[in-house]
Amino acid sequence: MKRTRLENSCCNIARSLYVIGDWWSLLIVRDALRGVRRFSEFQKNLGIAKNMLAGRLKMLVDEGILRLQPASDGSAWQEYVLTDKGRALQTVLVALSQWADDYLFDPDEPATRLIDRQQRQPLRKLVLQAADGRELAPADITIAIPLND
Amino acid sequence: MKRTRLENSCCNIARSLYVIGDWWSLLIVRDALRGVRRFSEFQKNLGIAKNMLAGRLKMLVDEGILRLQPASDGSAWQEYVLTDKGRALQTVLVALSQWADDYLFDPDEPATRLIDRQQRQPLRKLVLQAADGRELAPADITIAIPLND
Repeated sequence: MKRTRLENSCCNIARSLYVIGDWWSLLIVRDALRGVRRFSEFQKNLGIAKNMLAGRLKMLVDEGILRLQPASDGSAWQEYVLTDKGRALQTVLVALSQWADDYLFDPDEPATRLIDRQQRQPLRKLVLQAADGRELAPADITIAIPLND
Repeated sequence: MKRTRLENSCCNIARSLYVIGDWWSLLIVRDALRGVRRFSEFQKNLGIAKNMLAGRLKMLVDEGILRLQPASDGSAWQEYVLTDKGRALQTVLVALSQWADDYLFDPDEPATRLIDRQQRQPLRKLVLQAADGRELAPADITIAIPLND
C-alpha cells in the first residue's frame, strides 16, 4: 500500500486505513478494549513477534490511539491504555464482528461474541441510517467528493 | 500476520480480518459500492500495480465478496460485482469513515463523505446499542468467548 499517498487522502476511508496501518493494530485495539495493558500480555494473546508488536504499539502511540502510562500496580513497567480516539474504534470492531457473524461462521460454530457487559447479551445489529432516520441498504449510500479536491 | 491461524479463529474479528486480507480489499469494495466494475477502472482509481490488483480481486471472488459476470454492455469483458456478503461490508466502511471524520480531519479540511443517495446528506452516526436498545459506550462492551473453545 502506498502509505504516503493514503496519508493525505481526502477519502476518509483511505485515511483511516492508513492510520490503522494493518490488521495487527485492530487486534491490539481489540485486546486493549478487553483490558490488556502490558507488552507481555499483548504478546502472549496475539502470538506476534516481539519486534513486530513493538513497532505496532509505537505506531499506535504515535497516532494517538494508545498512550503510555506508569503501571497501575506501582511497578516500573509502563502500560498501554486507549485514548478516546482508540476507544472509538470499537464501532469498527463491532461492524467487523457482526459481518463475520453473518457471513463467516456456520450457524452452530462456536464464535466469540461482543456483548453488553451489563446484560451479557450480544449487541443489537448496527443500522445504517440517513440523517432523517430512514434505514439504508448498502446501495443507498454513495460517496460525496469535496469540490475543492 | 499468521493467516493460517486467523482463518479458523473463533474470534469473529480476527476471522473477518483474515478474510478481508488487507486494506486494498476494502478500498476495492469501496469502489465497487460506488459502481466500479472493470479491472481497468479499479486500477485507475486505486493506482495499484496490476498484478497486486489481480491477486486481490481473485481473493475477493474466492471469498464470495465479489463475483464475475459478463459485461453489461455485451462486450467480451467480465465485470466484478458485489455479492450480498460484499455489500454488507458497507457498515465496516461507514464505521471507518465516521471514525476518520471524528479524529483524522481538521474541521475545515475537505473530506469525502458517505451520503444518502436520496437526500444527499451525511449519514447518521452509527450507534452501539445493547439488545434492549440502551446506547453503549465502547467500554460497556466486552467479548464473550465460547466455552467449547
